[in-house]
Amino acid sequence: MHDIRLVEVGPRDGLQNEKTLVPLATKVELVNRLSATGLSVVEAGAFVSPKWVPQMADSAEVMQAIARKPGITYPVLVPNEKGLEAALAVGVTEVAVFGAASEAFSQKNINCSIAESLDRFRAVIDRARLSGVKVRGYVSCVLGCPYEGAVDPGKVAEVAARLMAMGCYEVSLGDTIGVGNPRAARAMLKRVAEDVPMGRIALHFHDTYGQALANILACIELGARVFDGAVAGLGGCPYAKGASGNVATEDVLYMLNGMGLSTGVDLDALAAIGTWISGELNRPNGSKVGRALSAKG
Amino acid sequence: MHDIRLVEVGPRDGLQNEKTLVPLATKVELVNRLSATGLSVVEAGAFVSPKWVPQMADSAEVMQAIARKPGITYPVLVPNEKGLEAALAVGVTEVAVFGAASEAFSQKNINCSIAESLDRFRAVIDRARLSGVKVRGYVSCVLGCPYEGAVDPGKVAEVAARLMAMGCYEVSLGDTIGVGNPRAARAMLKRVAEDVPMGRIALHFHDTYGQALANILACIELGARVFDGAVAGLGGCPYAKGASGNVATEDVLYMLNGMGLSTGVDLDALAAIGTWISGELNRPNGSKVGRALSAKG
Repeated sequence: MHDIRLVEVGPRDGLQNEKTLVPLATKVELVNRLSATGLSVVEAGAFVSPKWVPQMADSAEVMQAIARKPGITYPVLVPNEKGLEAALAVGVTEVAVFGAASEAFSQKNINCSIAESLDRFRAVIDRARLSGVKVRGYVSCVLGCPYEGAVDPGKVAEVAARLMAMGCYEVSLGDTIGVGNPRAARAMLKRVAEDVPMGRIALHFHDTYGQALANILACIELGARVFDGAVAGLGGCPYAKGASGNVATEDVLYMLNGMGLSTGVDLDALAAIGTWISGELNRPNGSKVGRALSAKG
Repeated sequence: MHDIRLVEVGPRDGLQNEKTLVPLATKVELVNRLSATGLSVVEAGAFVSPKWVPQMADSAEVMQAIARKPGITYPVLVPNEKGLEAALAVGVTEVAVFGAASEAFSQKNINCSIAESLDRFRAVIDRARLSGVKVRGYVSCVLGCPYEGAVDPGKVAEVAARLMAMGCYEVSLGDTIGVGNPRAARAMLKRVAEDVPMGRIALHFHDTYGQALANILACIELGARVFDGAVAGLGGCPYAKGASGNVATEDVLYMLNGMGLSTGVDLDALAAIGTWISGELNRPNGSKVGRALSAKG
């Protein structure tokens, strides 16, 4: 049992938001390499409409081609029962549903109200659990919404608690647009923890404004123990206009290592993967740790 | 009186470490523009050997050309009495001396032992104060040394206390190679604060491994109230090999604003300067906040 569990979302939340369409073989190699770093969770794809998310159109092929290692979970996102059936058909053992804490974002992102999305998830979660498949719940826009601005922590808590009540084993609270700060993150987490046990809460920070590590530190101090990250900060080129992306898992891990918090993950191995995938995508490495270690040779 | 004082070191610690030699007019414009953001301290140059630091060869010209605003201090670095005399000749009101907490770094960086550097600083500080000029003390390598590795917080405290005893009004503790983490930063600051009042301690973080904001948060929680930063993360291109550089002042300010900690500094104005100077230097903007705000519009 480690102090902190890192959930690697690079192959899904990362690649899904990259401009480049990544070849199947590269996706498979990415997941396989990540499986050798000590990570216990590698989010591997999404069974969503290829019309909306072309980057994830080959998730079934990815799931069939990867070498699944014992002790590692490879969750995939499913928006509805159709997606779940496709995921079950390739033998997934964990899926994730994704809701929002902002009505406007829910409408724009998944074309329905928060209430409608939760109704839809109920059937997905029931069916998944009947098949022995674990379900993780995402809540997006927990610290701000691109359309509504401020988001009420009470709303985050409500959506998170509903997802847990429907059978999710964990909720991942996402600062989708990266506008959070340690004070806001703390206030939000405290509020959610009134309704969901701290041990069931994951935090998912984007580093758009460079605040992710400070936010993670603030959440650790409150007792949070699960954090999402994407190797090389995949998902939104960090230097392009409109930059936005997941916090780099390497940067989180460097901080945790320095603080003496164990994760079981090998930093050098992870950083090497970040260097490699950045080269494959022909993008700068979005991890400062990755760049610094790579420069040292 | 604001909650936090930001010390802008971009024109000195930033430009000094950029590969590009910046024209005098650009330096002057940078300092002048920074003077209009609400910053109370803008480090403007260094009176060091142009053989060692060609980027700072025109610091006297910079000091003579800038429009000094009342209420703003424009400190310059001086390594010795010769540098101090040159600085006094152009009417500086504050200088800084720079020591190290690592013997090996002291030898490599300023060619003498820590003890010898402190002896040298004594004469500089005495002469400066006799002229009514305030002196700030830098201590480098407070969380690690490129040659020695780990650095004893007791050694940092010793050097910092010596600088204060000799007449510095503040010591700035620098994580020169950016290897710190919140736990190490906290332990170091706690140790120094045993010998130097917290109100006299500034922290100077480099963001080489992306840890600067988390470290600043940790230090704020201990009561630190003064932080150095460089607009656009000047000093070491963030995307090049060997990346290393000051934390971007904009990124620090975004966090402080979000936490409700006042600084008196205008984020939008600062970010606009970061965008401008990055263009002048033909480098990517090293501030994530700067990139995000610039992308928005």
